[in-house]
Amino acid sequence: MKNYIHGRWTKSHSSDKLNVTDPGTQEKLWEVPLGNRDDVDSAVKSAFGAADIWRNTPATARIQYLFKLKGLLEDNREEISRVCTMECGKTLAESRAEMQRAIENVEVACGIPVLMQSEFSEDIAVGIDEFIIRQPVGVSACIAPFNFPIMIPFWFLPYAIACGNTYIVKPSEKVPKTMQMLFELIDQLDLPEGVVNLVHGGREAVDSILDHPNIKAVSFVGSSKVARYVYERAARNGKRVQAQGGAKNPVLVLPDSDMEITTKIINDSVYGCAGQRCLAASTIIPVGDHKRVFTEAIVEAAKTRVTGYGLEAQTEMGALISRESKARTEHLIQKGLDDGATMLLDGRKAKISGYEKGNYVKPTILENVNPDGDLNRTEIFGPVMGIIHVNNIEDAIKLVNENNYGNAACIFTSNGSYARKFRNEANAGNIGINIGIAAPMAFFPFSGWNDSFFGDLHGQGKHAVEFFTQTKVVIERWPKEWTRKF
Amino acid sequence: MKNYIHGRWTKSHSSDKLNVTDPGTQEKLWEVPLGNRDDVDSAVKSAFGAADIWRNTPATARIQYLFKLKGLLEDNREEISRVCTMECGKTLAESRAEMQRAIENVEVACGIPVLMQSEFSEDIAVGIDEFIIRQPVGVSACIAPFNFPIMIPFWFLPYAIACGNTYIVKPSEKVPKTMQMLFELIDQLDLPEGVVNLVHGGREAVDSILDHPNIKAVSFVGSSKVARYVYERAARNGKRVQAQGGAKNPVLVLPDSDMEITTKIINDSVYGCAGQRCLAASTIIPVGDHKRVFTEAIVEAAKTRVTGYGLEAQTEMGALISRESKARTEHLIQKGLDDGATMLLDGRKAKISGYEKGNYVKPTILENVNPDGDLNRTEIFGPVMGIIHVNNIEDAIKLVNENNYGNAACIFTSNGSYARKFRNEANAGNIGINIGIAAPMAFFPFSGWNDSFFGDLHGQGKHAVEFFTQTKVVIERWPKEWTRKF
Amino acid sequence: MKNYIHGRWTKSHSSDKLNVTDPGTQEKLWEVPLGNRDDVDSAVKSAFGAADIWRNTPATARIQYLFKLKGLLEDNREEISRVCTMECGKTLAESRAEMQRAIENVEVACGIPVLMQSEFSEDIAVGIDEFIIRQPVGVSACIAPFNFPIMIPFWFLPYAIACGNTYIVKPSEKVPKTMQMLFELIDQLDLPEGVVNLVHGGREAVDSILDHPNIKAVSFVGSSKVARYVYERAARNGKRVQAQGGAKNPVLVLPDSDMEITTKIINDSVYGCAGQRCLAASTIIPVGDHKRVFTEAIVEAAKTRVTGYGLEAQTEMGALISRESKARTEHLIQKGLDDGATMLLDGRKAKISGYEKGNYVKPTILENVNPDGDLNRTEIFGPVMGIIHVNNIEDAIKLVNENNYGNAACIFTSNGSYARKFRNEANAGNIGINIGIAAPMAFFPFSGWNDSFFGDLHGQGKHAVEFFTQTKVVIERWPKEWTRKF
Amino acid sequence: MKNYIHGRWTKSHSSDKLNVTDPGTQEKLWEVPLGNRDDVDSAVKSAFGAADIWRNTPATARIQYLFKLKGLLEDNREEISRVCTMECGKTLAESRAEMQRAIENVEVACGIPVLMQSEFSEDIAVGIDEFIIRQPVGVSACIAPFNFPIMIPFWFLPYAIACGNTYIVKPSEKVPKTMQMLFELIDQLDLPEGVVNLVHGGREAVDSILDHPNIKAVSFVGSSKVARYVYERAARNGKRVQAQGGAKNPVLVLPDSDMEITTKIINDSVYGCAGQRCLAASTIIPVGDHKRVFTEAIVEAAKTRVTGYGLEAQTEMGALISRESKARTEHLIQKGLDDGATMLLDGRKAKISGYEKGNYVKPTILENVNPDGDLNRTEIFGPVMGIIHVNNIEDAIKLVNENNYGNAACIFTSNGSYARKFRNEANAGNIGINIGIAAPMAFFPFSGWNDSFFGDLHGQGKHAVEFFTQTKVVIERWPKEWTRKF
Repeated sequence: MKNYIHGRWTKSHSSDKLNVTDPGTQEKLWEVPLGNRDDVDSAVKSAFGAADIWRNTPATARIQYLFKLKGLLEDNREEISRVCTMECGKTLAESRAEMQRAIENVEVACGIPVLMQSEFSEDIAVGIDEFIIRQPVGVSACIAPFNFPIMIPFWFLPYAIACGNTYIVKPSEKVPKTMQMLFELIDQLDLPEGVVNLVHGGREAVDSILDHPNIKAVSFVGSSKVARYVYERAARNGKRVQAQGGAKNPVLVLPDSDMEITTKIINDSVYGCAGQRCLAASTIIPVGDHKRVFTEAIVEAAKTRVTGYGLEAQTEMGALISRESKARTEHLIQKGLDDGATMLLDGRKAKISGYEKGNYVKPTILENVNPDGDLNRTEIFGPVMGIIHVNNIEDAIKLVNENNYGNAACIFTSNGSYARKFRNEANAGNIGINIGIAAPMAFFPFSGWNDSFFGDLHGQGKHAVEFFTQTKVVIERWPKEWTRKF
Repeated sequence: MKNYIHGRWTKSHSSDKLNVTDPGTQEKLWEVPLGNRDDVDSAVKSAFGAADIWRNTPATARIQYLFKLKGLLEDNREEISRVCTMECGKTLAESRAEMQRAIENVEVACGIPVLMQSEFSEDIAVGIDEFIIRQPVGVSACIAPFNFPIMIPFWFLPYAIACGNTYIVKPSEKVPKTMQMLFELIDQLDLPEGVVNLVHGGREAVDSILDHPNIKAVSFVGSSKVARYVYERAARNGKRVQAQGGAKNPVLVLPDSDMEITTKIINDSVYGCAGQRCLAASTIIPVGDHKRVFTEAIVEAAKTRVTGYGLEAQTEMGALISRESKARTEHLIQKGLDDGATMLLDGRKAKISGYEKGNYVKPTILENVNPDGDLNRTEIFGPVMGIIHVNNIEDAIKLVNENNYGNAACIFTSNGSYARKFRNEANAGNIGINIGIAAPMAFFPFSGWNDSFFGDLHGQGKHAVEFFTQTKVVIERWPKEWTRKF
Repeated sequence: MKNYIHGRWTKSHSSDKLNVTDPGTQEKLWEVPLGNRDDVDSAVKSAFGAADIWRNTPATARIQYLFKLKGLLEDNREEISRVCTMECGKTLAESRAEMQRAIENVEVACGIPVLMQSEFSEDIAVGIDEFIIRQPVGVSACIAPFNFPIMIPFWFLPYAIACGNTYIVKPSEKVPKTMQMLFELIDQLDLPEGVVNLVHGGREAVDSILDHPNIKAVSFVGSSKVARYVYERAARNGKRVQAQGGAKNPVLVLPDSDMEITTKIINDSVYGCAGQRCLAASTIIPVGDHKRVFTEAIVEAAKTRVTGYGLEAQTEMGALISRESKARTEHLIQKGLDDGATMLLDGRKAKISGYEKGNYVKPTILENVNPDGDLNRTEIFGPVMGIIHVNNIEDAIKLVNENNYGNAACIFTSNGSYARKFRNEANAGNIGINIGIAAPMAFFPFSGWNDSFFGDLHGQGKHAVEFFTQTKVVIERWPKEWTRKF
Repeated sequence: MKNYIHGRWTKSHSSDKLNVTDPGTQEKLWEVPLGNRDDVDSAVKSAFGAADIWRNTPATARIQYLFKLKGLLEDNREEISRVCTMECGKTLAESRAEMQRAIENVEVACGIPVLMQSEFSEDIAVGIDEFIIRQPVGVSACIAPFNFPIMIPFWFLPYAIACGNTYIVKPSEKVPKTMQMLFELIDQLDLPEGVVNLVHGGREAVDSILDHPNIKAVSFVGSSKVARYVYERAARNGKRVQAQGGAKNPVLVLPDSDMEITTKIINDSVYGCAGQRCLAASTIIPVGDHKRVFTEAIVEAAKTRVTGYGLEAQTEMGALISRESKARTEHLIQKGLDDGATMLLDGRKAKISGYEKGNYVKPTILENVNPDGDLNRTEIFGPVMGIIHVNNIEDAIKLVNENNYGNAACIFTSNGSYARKFRNEANAGNIGINIGIAAPMAFFPFSGWNDSFFGDLHGQGKHAVEFFTQTKVVIERWPKEWTRKF
């Protein structure tokens, strides 16, 4: 696997390599180079060199590459989705779905001529005008996680280049091939050399990006701990930063919601991507006196979910990304039990026939989870649902708001007053009302709060445009007298 | 002098005090307490306690306090301007002018019901709506510098509270009385207790603000060195930050500009506030072959500027803030000469009759300054003009863009093509065309770049609103079936 | 009573006069001149002459007059409200309420520097910039109805002048004194002469406004018939027009709403201003099987409403504007009965002790109104509620959408799905969910649809700004070569 | 040739036909049916029937058709451009250029999910939210002129359908085949039946569109006389209207502009499309004392322009649309001479070898045109330049502003002060600074003023979105108490 630098596939300066394995089989798929500071330097040099030519390419011309990219992504949807599933373990439907959201972000970025329009005011004082020009920030970079190998870099990249920045992507070293394939499409765009670059690598590549003086803006998605580290280190180096962290998303279930539909949606939310997504429902909070009705329905729904190898048609839930991840998940389940929870459905010791070595954990449900225990305080990133019953909506919202994270919070109810109270008071940035995964459309910000996000401008949509442009205020006076008589 | 906490004038927890002196006389005016961590804690406690009641006060009600504040500021313009001049050394006209800009920021913040409107989209998918709610960030704070005791906190405060945040101001310990007086007006607003708080202090107060877990957003204005420190430290603590640093603002003068008008404006820019403002012109770059014409005109204009005590009517330029500042300015002038510059006008050893102890430096002009010397690389914050001649506009823009700062850059010309080239290429966030001080109106961002600003959202206008609100995305589905038959 | 033209109180050119009577007593209050074409000509001449000086006054200066106007309106709230009540018949509380909305429109217009900002795009092609300047339209005018003598002209006037237009108000000849008093405040603003003018009059004044070649934009509020006439005639003369017509506003009541609260709100809506407002609920549509519960509660609530003279403290509902109006209302009630409705509460033959000659009709309720009869098809503008029972929400929405008008439509329910279905499907521009009077805030458009509005841009907020400005697109190229060597 | 109705090619109800001739040869190309009221009725019926399904198709799905349309337009650029040239007479390069602008409008409309976002405000009062939903207007139609058979309908159509309206296009009966071919592409989109319809026809079809009660919005481009007629008649029927009229565009030339470049650009502007475009420069106003230099240069530039058959490679200017048009142009030239102008270049009696019957007039230049004569007051729509010399910019702007039209006005200068004065004061909606054809990009309004436009919202960009959507204001209260205890 190679880096893509200055429009060419380029061998890494590093000889370190990492095996990429199929989470569903634990077999080695391919090797990825662990790029070093020199690789980042090369990419920045290329991107920096391309900055002027690219920013001076009119926005109307820049978007032509994005229109073309949309077509290429659509034409290669299946092939890339398959590789994504192989590396990442998720189901094929899940890979296709993230491909779709990536495409939608390209679509929104096609609207950059409108989105980059800035403000003009005539006569702020007699004869003086003032206006803003939006200009690109310069070289920008994203550091991506393993769980959405396709989608997450597309929260940033399309906007960055549409706005006239040049760009560097560092994909997760666990799922590098997917980005490699996406760059094969990018290679077909005939962009000026250096506009978009790919560097494979791990920690050293990350730090090199955070430290490089010519990188002006960094987008990160990962755990809260690393997000905070990225925020601080990039800030120390004077950069713009948007750093998205982890989550522990609560879902309120009120008795006036339809149990069949609700439990189905919650299951999809908790177990989709095997729980490895930052919008996954994690803590389910039934409100009021319908404990039994709810738990029976939810266990029933969870039980039938088919766990298996991602590429197989019948699979509804795939493998966890690594052995470590599986072990960690099972450890946290045990911790939950030790802290007093009751096991309703135990997904540990999953055996998937034909894929015995895969990192599988089946749907797991624990009831009466200790709110202050590790299971409820920690982002599990596995297919584990914790249930905490409360008596009324006030207690439920209190529980939601004691959470350090603030990525998403959802409620299921048919009552408008409960829904309004919840969306007004819940301390989270993405709210779902009768929605299981509160994933904002590409034209809305992906709006994490609290420890789920560090910075002030989020990925996607108008926030992305604000992040990837800097405002240049011009105050212009043309004195009446400064004319020649003819 | 007292802190203003929870709607009451409150004694500082600290017994450390600092003498505040009149820069124009070096006489002691009053003492300011150097507030400590406990003072900040008290302020945060109050502000945090007021957060809910204030954010639940509708925006239309919140702005009524701002309409009233505008009136109070206008009614007390003279009195506050006088104290500002006493503490800060600037002329009375300069104090009045910053009062005016403070009022204008209040005016813009009165429009918050419109400015806080967010986006709504019907049917992002069939039957599903998505929208954004803008909610306040929480407790916010500003750390203000000495040079604009009135104006700078008003780049932030009016927007912060209009958006529903509660607020803490820490003024510069060199000019605390001005803010004290402004808070006497705020006290008359009958805001709910805790909505706005004042803490006097120095370094400890600053660090306490940067570290306090319940402060969510920090606005800073000061030197680039401290701005970067603030950016990093606040980031480490997960906060939003906007940190404005120093500047070294270049001005191009083309021969097709009117020399009389141009040199007058440049003088006002270089020597206004005795050079102690982050938009002051500092390096003047005559372009092309009009060296002599320009230098004669500019020296003539500078010579006649009356330096003196700020409160006296005839004074056109006041004192520097401190003895240290005067010494530093004179040292840098000498450094410039040592590095090869020619003295055209020497303002050192200024003696102002009746104010012999004041920190005065008179207008100073050095020609042929070494571009790489300290004089040209350092923010002087004194009344010193450095002239560097260049042959053409390309060389001039190159000189501008080699500068690490990026606060302002101006050009004087009657030619549209030169002006457009300059505003397109100059690497600075506030551009003046035939303007000496490129200070954005309150409804535009104060848009520093490079080492003049750390963060992504600036003070004033729409950027302030984005900074002081967080976006809550709501995805709402009301299933058709979830209705009862009646 | 005089016109206000060119900053002076001016006698009308016409000698025709009309008696203005107190609707609650039928006593003559004062006389109003019926201005003619010459009066309109004088006003236009003044406004046209002031256009240049006013549009060249910076927006930041123009809004200072509006800040002052807000203060004056607040200070004179009571006095003007009393006169409004005397002329118009409504209660004092109702007069105060429309005063408040007038003030809120002034507040929003104070934000015009932001609201007038237009779009700038750099490099639409290499080296070419394009931007919009918002400039005023010129002389504009409003033709106002009797029912909100204070508020309705303020949907337009503050925006018109804030945007730099000069303005003419023609109030209803039935309530001229209220506007006279408001102009006494405007007179205190020291606006340049001609910026705002007042012309009293009737039909001739209206037609003169519609025909005058120097009036560029007309805002009208009145009946749909006249609104359409205004739209056509002003269009024939090439003007911008926004013409607001009548209404017949339906309200759905679902059984899951609280009957006590709901019937109280509906009563306030139907009987507020004695039904003389274009957002008054008129046709109440209980959905499902709660006929009896609802009708008992609503009759109970209506019965207790105190009808009487507007200035008396206990009065909850005042008089109709004229004898003709009273007669017409009673005629339509009878027509409803003739067409098959059942009388639940008969407000005809109201006798108000001490005010026997006033134009009073008491709260009236008819059940099972014929949907196709005159009572349900006609805007009554009197205190008459018609009830039509339906079985389900589909039938209810069908009934709503068969209505030719489209001003407002409301629903009362606790169910989110019903509310969403209603707001998505109801064919009206102002929707209330558990709201009785769907009156948009000043920062939202007053958004009538269908026969309730002719034009495309409504009063208030951003629509008003778009209406009162015209976009000037500038495409600017400064060729690189067009510079002189120096 | 057939109509395209309800997704099918449909024979016209009318048996009237018109011959379509090639303006360059006067040979018959094909016949077009002159559709009648029944044809319009059929189209409206189809469009009305499709309205619900289309508006309930999410915007994100609707734009997929537009992305596809962009591809189809690009793939069929040449073929359609050839037919356009055949029918319309313009050069192939000119046909390609209007094709490009059509595509750009499709691109902008692809951004409709962002462009349709409306405003949301939480807590306008405690517990009450208010927001706007943008919903389509319904069935809309455009009535297009002959001079831009491809581009002009695309100022409207892409936005109309992107916003969820259904649409009817009535192309000019002089150039019907071009639209026919565009609809062959539209036919390939697999839009729901009835979303877009094509009706061929003349005056009867126009009136039928203006009168039909189910058409809610009409866009027109043509002469000012007809535009005003359309505005009035559509207004009488209660519709939204945007009606674009004729023009007489002035161009100022200052001596400080480069004569070679300037005269070349002005030639392109005056003679492009043989002068048959509403942004064509028409009156050239040299300012100051450079009469001879300018006239010599402009005559030189005009002389060399190759007039000929549009499809031939060397042709730089094609034929006029009809014999009548040619005769009218020559008549107006003579009138200009009779009124005192001097002939500098006479393009009458043009003979194009091999195309002797074509409607050719060669570049014509008259100097010292009488400002008040017909030549200067009338839109010629032919390749005629009138020159009027003035002494200073004040006189020049006065001349510009005496013009009844207000489509475009341009200036050539290198001086920023002259340019600013001109763009501030010139009474026209599209301003060019060193630009010959001030044609706004697709993301800016095509912003005619005065008699060049009737209505308030223009074609293209955000204005188009405002025109093709109606705002529905929702005020929503969910009472805290309206919840059930569980």
